Amino acid sequence: MARWEPDARLRLVRAALDLFTERGYDDTTIVEIAERAGLTKSTFFRYFPDKRDVLIAGQDALSRSFAEGIASAPATATPLEAVACALDAAAAILTPDIRELGPQLRAVVAANRELQDRDALKRTSLAAVLADALRQRGIEAAAASLAGELGVLAFSRAHSMWADPANQRHFSDLARQALDELRRAIATLD
Amino acid sequence: MARWEPDARLRLVRAALDLFTERGYDDTTIVEIAERAGLTKSTFFRYFPDKRDVLIAGQDALSRSFAEGIASAPATATPLEAVACALDAAAAILTPDIRELGPQLRAVVAANRELQDRDALKRTSLAAVLADALRQRGIEAAAASLAGELGVLAFSRAHSMWADPANQRHFSDLARQALDELRRAIATLD
Repeated sequence: MARWEPDARLRLVRAALDLFTERGYDDTTIVEIAERAGLTKSTFFRYFPDKRDVLIAGQDALSRSFAEGIASAPATATPLEAVACALDAAAAILTPDIRELGPQLRAVVAANRELQDRDALKRTSLAAVLADALRQRGIEAAAASLAGELGVLAFSRAHSMWADPANQRHFSDLARQALDELRRAIATLD
Repeated sequence: MARWEPDARLRLVRAALDLFTERGYDDTTIVEIAERAGLTKSTFFRYFPDKRDVLIAGQDALSRSFAEGIASAPATATPLEAVACALDAAAAILTPDIRELGPQLRAVVAANRELQDRDALKRTSLAAVLADALRQRGIEAAAASLAGELGVLAFSRAHSMWADPANQRHFSDLARQALDELRRAIATLD
């Protein structure tokens, strides 16, 4: 095991985003990313299995937060109250660093079809994480799937408001608002 | 433009599924698929842009059905009533041929990570088609997104019941049942 590199993960993400912005995602190599970050290729592979994983660096952490948030909800919580706990747990990993990288990340993803596909998959996978965690609380399958989809819709909406450079509000606050909007929307479905 | 080949599309799908089953998706070439179907490579490309598109041959037709079903719903239809119209419209393209190919198709997809990813994307894209069509009816964005997700959940559930070889019921009937189950699940969310 090589020595520990302070902030190596974040340095790799920043370097990758800079290179993807400058020359495009497809024309950037892992060696170039490592060099730009002042690290080696093998350090890169200690943090990421592949180039595209740089862009979903936060997904595993987000999945874990979602699962832990649901598990930590009070036993009496309704499915949507448990989802609110998942969104609160996610707030903890949405750091200022992550927020600052947001606009550049979105521009890179918008410019590449493969990355857009990856983004859609991330969404599906996060909904499944929420639904699984809800089923483990004994919530029936249809309600769990539905609450999982609602959680991801609320997360996406809250995240795009939070990532807005003009935003001053905390993610948890925006997530509650988004979830309340969805609750009101539910009432208009039928 | 080459001459018309009767049932060329279905022959290509059958040949591809047989080859994917026999030797795996990755180890099957487009030339081999065309040969097995008794057609040429250029005929293949008249129907499908790429190998993996063989497996989502029905998706464009399904997207169109969804959009048309929503557009054809009565002006007084609620969002979920409009979604029910979309599911009815989809029933028209779920032919016995499609149903017969189902088990083989699912086995091929289950054996390949790339194809599973593709399947997840299909789901996201269908939800977006429903949501877009609902917004065009003047339905507010959050309700439209939510109803789109519900429509895809109902479609998936109804489709897996319909594709069961033991099933005798019509897709529309199963879709109504799935949508009603989701309606009841909604009532348990909070």
